[in-house]
Amino acid sequence: MAQVFLPKGTRDLLPADMNRRLQVIDTVRGVFARYGFEPLETPAFERIETLTGKYGDEGEKLMFRILKRGEAGKQGEVDAALRYDLTVPLARMMAMNPGLPLPFKRSQIQPVWRADRPQRGRFREFYQCDVDTVGTTSPIADAECIAVVHDALMALGLTQFTIRVNHRQLLAALAASIGALENESSLLVTLDKLDKLGRDGVTQELIDRGFEQAQVDQLWAHIGGAPIPGAEAVEAELQTILELAKDMGVDPDRVKLDRTLARGLDYYTGPVFETVLMGDYTGSISGGGRYDGLIGMFSGKESVPAVGVSLGIERIFMLMEEMGLMPDTQTTTQVWVTVFSEETRFASLKAATELRSAGIRVQVSTRMGKLSKQFKDAHGRGVPHAMVIGPDDIAAGEVSIKDMDSGEQWSGSLKQAVERLS
Amino acid sequence: MAQVFLPKGTRDLLPADMNRRLQVIDTVRGVFARYGFEPLETPAFERIETLTGKYGDEGEKLMFRILKRGEAGKQGEVDAALRYDLTVPLARMMAMNPGLPLPFKRSQIQPVWRADRPQRGRFREFYQCDVDTVGTTSPIADAECIAVVHDALMALGLTQFTIRVNHRQLLAALAASIGALENESSLLVTLDKLDKLGRDGVTQELIDRGFEQAQVDQLWAHIGGAPIPGAEAVEAELQTILELAKDMGVDPDRVKLDRTLARGLDYYTGPVFETVLMGDYTGSISGGGRYDGLIGMFSGKESVPAVGVSLGIERIFMLMEEMGLMPDTQTTTQVWVTVFSEETRFASLKAATELRSAGIRVQVSTRMGKLSKQFKDAHGRGVPHAMVIGPDDIAAGEVSIKDMDSGEQWSGSLKQAVERLS
Repeated sequence: MAQVFLPKGTRDLLPADMNRRLQVIDTVRGVFARYGFEPLETPAFERIETLTGKYGDEGEKLMFRILKRGEAGKQGEVDAALRYDLTVPLARMMAMNPGLPLPFKRSQIQPVWRADRPQRGRFREFYQCDVDTVGTTSPIADAECIAVVHDALMALGLTQFTIRVNHRQLLAALAASIGALENESSLLVTLDKLDKLGRDGVTQELIDRGFEQAQVDQLWAHIGGAPIPGAEAVEAELQTILELAKDMGVDPDRVKLDRTLARGLDYYTGPVFETVLMGDYTGSISGGGRYDGLIGMFSGKESVPAVGVSLGIERIFMLMEEMGLMPDTQTTTQVWVTVFSEETRFASLKAATELRSAGIRVQVSTRMGKLSKQFKDAHGRGVPHAMVIGPDDIAAGEVSIKDMDSGEQWSGSLKQAVERLS
Repeated sequence: MAQVFLPKGTRDLLPADMNRRLQVIDTVRGVFARYGFEPLETPAFERIETLTGKYGDEGEKLMFRILKRGEAGKQGEVDAALRYDLTVPLARMMAMNPGLPLPFKRSQIQPVWRADRPQRGRFREFYQCDVDTVGTTSPIADAECIAVVHDALMALGLTQFTIRVNHRQLLAALAASIGALENESSLLVTLDKLDKLGRDGVTQELIDRGFEQAQVDQLWAHIGGAPIPGAEAVEAELQTILELAKDMGVDPDRVKLDRTLARGLDYYTGPVFETVLMGDYTGSISGGGRYDGLIGMFSGKESVPAVGVSLGIERIFMLMEEMGLMPDTQTTTQVWVTVFSEETRFASLKAATELRSAGIRVQVSTRMGKLSKQFKDAHGRGVPHAMVIGPDDIAAGEVSIKDMDSGEQWSGSLKQAVERLS
C-alpha cells in the first residue's frame, strides 16, 4: 500500500477546528450583516485572462494554473487559475453586472490559493474575509471599514487592538513637502519598516537610500505632528472619517492617526487602515483602504470609487487559540446517549429523539452493553454529559444523566432531563 | 476594453442567492449536529495520485488538473486536481488520521468540480453535502442516514418526499433466485430505469438483453413481495433499520422498502437509500448507502465499515425556489437609515448604532438630502423599513419609520423604534 499525503501546504480541518472556525465566521458575518454587507461567492477559479497581469511577477509565479480539458490540456494548454484574492473577482463580477444598484456592499469569506513556501501558520489554501463598498465616495463607507473591524474584533473578544489610519494623499503631500516626490515609493517602502527597524533603523536606511539628513529630520517632524503643507483637505477628510466612526460606536482610544502607515502603496488612492494587536503580537490582523482605480479595470472605467477592508481571519483563528479565547470546541455534541442492550435500544433512541426535538445535540452510542466503555467514548471526545437508560430506569419511567467531568449522576423524568440539558 | 467572462459552467452567487443558500445550509448543519455529525473541510485539490483511478474513465476526463508550479509546470507536468467528490478525500483523511476515535461521524458541505457539459441547473462547480459514519456496522448508523435526511427535509419545508430503501445483498439474492447471478449488473442497470421506462419498458429491455420471459415474471413476483430465498437475514436487517429510524422520529409513511432500488451498484455493499419528491419532480434529492469497501482504499484495509448519505443540496436550492419555499432573501437588511443633511448625519449614524446594538441589520444611506431618492434606494433593494431623522425629529427627540411596502409612517423615540423593529 502506497503512503498517502495531502498536497504540500494544505490541511484538513477536522471537527474541533471547524467548530471554532464556523463560530468565528458566524460572529463576523453577523457584524458584517448589521452594516448591510451581504455575502457574495465567486467561483474557485477564474479564466486565465482575468487573472494574468493583476498580481505582478511574484503573484504570477504563485498561481495554481488549471489545464484545459481534453486534447488541448494534454498539450499543456491552460485556460483557468485558482482565485488568488477576492478583489479581482469582485472587479470582474462588477463589470459583468453593470445593473447592480450602487453602492454595492458585499462581504466575501472564501479560500484563496497561493503556492507560497509553506511555513508555520502559512498555507497554500487559506481563507480571506473581505468587505467592500463599491460605488460611493461617501466618507461613511470609509468609516464603516473602521467600524466593522472594531465591532468584529470586540465581538470575538480580541479587544486589545489599535486601528491605525492614514491617507495615501497625506503621504504624497509629506513626500512633496520634504522634496522627495520623485523618491516617494522609496520613502514609503522604508517607512513601512518602522515597526521592525525602529526610528534609528529607518533613519539609517533612508540615508543609505540617498536621502539628506535635513529631509529625514523634516520627515520626523511631520510624522511627529508638524503641519504638512497642502494636506489640509486630506487632514479634514480623515477627521471626518474618525468622527463618523465614533458616531458608529467606535471607541476613539482604539483608533489612531498614524502618518507612517503606508500599506499597499500602488493600490490605494485614499484612506488606508491597518489593525495591530497590543502586546507581543506583531503583524497586522486587518488592513484595507480606498482603491478607486481598481474596480473599473474590467469595465473600462477609469475610476470607480471603492473602499474595503480585509480581516486576517486565519491569523485571527490562530491568535484566538493562542490567547485562549477559543471556546472548547473539541465537539459540539452535548449528550452521549448510551445503549444498555438491544432490548432497551428503542428507549435510548426515543430519548435521543426528544432531546433533538428540543434542539440538543446528541450522539447515540453504536456500542452496546458495558457502560464503562461508552462513558470512555463520551469522555474521550469531550462530550459533557452521558445519558443512561437501563431496564430499571425504563420501569421507573426515568433516565439518568452523568456529568462526565464531575462524575455526578442525576435521575429524573425525560422531560426534566430535557429542561436540565437545554 | 476586452469583454470579461466567467469560466464556462461557473457562476457568481450574488447576495440574494447567498442569503438563501446560507439559510438552507444553516438549517441542514443544525440537523446534522443534532445527530452528532460534526463539520469537516478538506482542501480544494488533492494530489493527482490520490484521485487517479477512483472515478472511472468518464470521471478522469472531467477532472480539473492543476499544473505544477515552476519549470515542470511549463512542461505540462500535473501534480494535483480539484476535488471531484467528498468521499475520496474522506477516505484519504481517514488513512492519514488512524488515531481518530471511531465511529467517526462527519458532515461536509463544500464545492466539488467536474467539467461536465454545462446545462440548466448543472454547473462545473457545485456544492455537495454529505454525512458519513465511519467505523461501525451498527444499524443505528444506517438508520441515522434515513433520519437526518428526513429531519433536514422536514426542517426545510420540503415535506412531500419518500425515502426509498433497499439492500445491495437483497438485490444479489434476487438475481440469484431468478438464475441471473451472472447477469446481475445487466439486471440492475435495467431495473434502475423503472421510473423512466415503466414496467413494460423494463420487461422489454430485459428480454432484449437476453433474459427469459420466465425469469422476468419471477422478477416481478419478487418485486411484488414474494419471498426471496436466502434473503431472510438481509430482510431482517432492513426491518431493524426501519424500526430504529421510526424510534428516531421518522414518519413511517415517508419511508418505503423498494426492491427495485439499485443505486450505484459497484460502490455499495449494504443498505441503499434514495429520496424522491412526490408530484412532478423527477430525480432524487438525496442518496446514499453502506459502502464498506471504500474507506480502506488508502490504508490498505480491506473493509472499513462506513455508511453515508448525500443531500442534493443544489437541487434542493433550485426546487425550494421553484416551489416558493424560499423566503424573500433579496436582502437581509432590515432598515435603511436615511441621511437628511451633513448636519444631521451624526444623528442618523447614532440611531443606526443603536439599532445594530440590538442586533438589527442596518444600512446607512451614503446619499444625502432628497428623501424620495433614498426611499427608492431602500425599496429597490427590498429593504422593508426606512428610518428618517430630520432636524425637527432631532429637536423633538424622535425618529420616524416608514414601512416601504404600505408607505405607513410611524414616529416615536429611538428606544421605541428599536423595540418595534426587533
